[in-house]
Amino acid sequence: MDQSTGGKSHRVLNYVETSIRVRYADTDTMGVVYYGTYPIYFEVGRAEYMRSKGFPYKKFEETGFHLVVVHLEAKYYNTAAYDDLLTVRTSIAELKSRGLIFHYEIFRDGVLIVEGKTKHICTNSDKKTVVIPASLFETLKDVKPR
Amino acid sequence: MDQSTGGKSHRVLNYVETSIRVRYADTDTMGVVYYGTYPIYFEVGRAEYMRSKGFPYKKFEETGFHLVVVHLEAKYYNTAAYDDLLTVRTSIAELKSRGLIFHYEIFRDGVLIVEGKTKHICTNSDKKTVVIPASLFETLKDVKPR
Amino acid sequence: MDQSTGGKSHRVLNYVETSIRVRYADTDTMGVVYYGTYPIYFEVGRAEYMRSKGFPYKKFEETGFHLVVVHLEAKYYNTAAYDDLLTVRTSIAELKSRGLIFHYEIFRDGVLIVEGKTKHICTNSDKKTVVIPASLFETLKDVKPR
Amino acid sequence: MDQSTGGKSHRVLNYVETSIRVRYADTDTMGVVYYGTYPIYFEVGRAEYMRSKGFPYKKFEETGFHLVVVHLEAKYYNTAAYDDLLTVRTSIAELKSRGLIFHYEIFRDGVLIVEGKTKHICTNSDKKTVVIPASLFETLKDVKPR
Repeated sequence: MDQSTGGKSHRVLNYVETSIRVRYADTDTMGVVYYGTYPIYFEVGRAEYMRSKGFPYKKFEETGFHLVVVHLEAKYYNTAAYDDLLTVRTSIAELKSRGLIFHYEIFRDGVLIVEGKTKHICTNSDKKTVVIPASLFETLKDVKPR
Repeated sequence: MDQSTGGKSHRVLNYVETSIRVRYADTDTMGVVYYGTYPIYFEVGRAEYMRSKGFPYKKFEETGFHLVVVHLEAKYYNTAAYDDLLTVRTSIAELKSRGLIFHYEIFRDGVLIVEGKTKHICTNSDKKTVVIPASLFETLKDVKPR
Repeated sequence: MDQSTGGKSHRVLNYVETSIRVRYADTDTMGVVYYGTYPIYFEVGRAEYMRSKGFPYKKFEETGFHLVVVHLEAKYYNTAAYDDLLTVRTSIAELKSRGLIFHYEIFRDGVLIVEGKTKHICTNSDKKTVVIPASLFETLKDVKPR
Repeated sequence: MDQSTGGKSHRVLNYVETSIRVRYADTDTMGVVYYGTYPIYFEVGRAEYMRSKGFPYKKFEETGFHLVVVHLEAKYYNTAAYDDLLTVRTSIAELKSRGLIFHYEIFRDGVLIVEGKTKHICTNSDKKTVVIPASLFETLKDVKPR
């Protein structure tokens, strides 16, 4: 069991894909997308994941809760360049009562560029770690218990 | 008279210089500093200007006020590259009761790279335009009325 | 006559609109889009303008030419926030033999947030200012001489 | 043995500290430093590490080589805010013939904010993975074999 998110976990099987066009601002002097740009693409991926489930992250925050990032990981397999049209495939790798892990794969024309994960805990308006509100949990849980 | 800041104006004669090392993240695929990075360097310039006057912008914000940017201008004369050590020379081009204009010149080894200006209005915690609090105004006003 | 772009000018009458979703990364601690993010949105606007004319900027660069930014201006009328869906309306304000000016208006639900301009000169692979290649000039010139 | 960097490894025992002042641009609408900003701080950390060893990364690149990031990890323990003065403590966690791992700890007043690692492989001007040139290897190896 993963101690940091705690509790019984589910494995989500589906994913959501989002397109991102690489901007000049995203690149660096090596002529490729800067390694620190990908966490921004991950953010876009999870935002669109939640939107597609009918629960935009903004709406979630308006209830006073946040999904705070506690861990980030990225593996770089290939480079992307200016104006590339990338696909971010986002899924939930783990869903627990107090946190979750988003998983990302970024492709260009079917070629894997970067793979990553972000682990989040749920906090309330007092910045305390809390159980994910049922409304969000049920939305994200279109899953099978493992 | 500049209508948007209003009132009697002063011209500040001195300036403050700050060093900025160009990061990889600041550059783009042309091998130079991205044009949109310079407004960030301007921000550093005015923050250090205020700190050097003994009134850090953060301290100013803690009183509930903001200096909101209403206008930005930048002229690009030369390019800068990764790891360049730049100097941002910041001064106040205009100081009025409700707003001010910061002026920036960014050099590398005495060569002018970019020149710019930002115009700010003072807002209170209700986001209303207000007169700049006397504490800040007096700090910034080491100037001669023109 | 504008000396920096030189020659006879045309005024382009049409515009191209592009949608941009505000990312968390685009915002700052005031809870709004950071003022230095808008030049990035301008970049997206002009990239999509050129793409819509059938001449993507990347394709243009592959011929060895660049449209280098020499001047930037932005006026801030309203703020935008996380997850806002913005519209960037891009047009060519001026087209001359050696340069051009893009004009941008950024709206949210019809409300003007930011207006801006970027002036560009055309450079070749030796970084010399040159006349805009006819292929691009004719593409952009769907205009009336003024 | 770590397959991706290959060969005999060394453990470097010392570290280099660098100060970074948090910019407005680095923060987000939660009022803290955006999670995707930290990889930029890591970049600053390793650049200053190499500079302090007398071998600036820019100088290394001028020889045609690069230290390409293949893996990134960050753990977020606390938040940082606008104008905080952070310390990035950078060390080499592993040094092998074809790659290395930088390790970072970011503190504010002695409190750990973020910890991270980046794994790099050495590539030549043909973008092929190669053995780290002896000049750099010897510079970085102020270490004990483990």
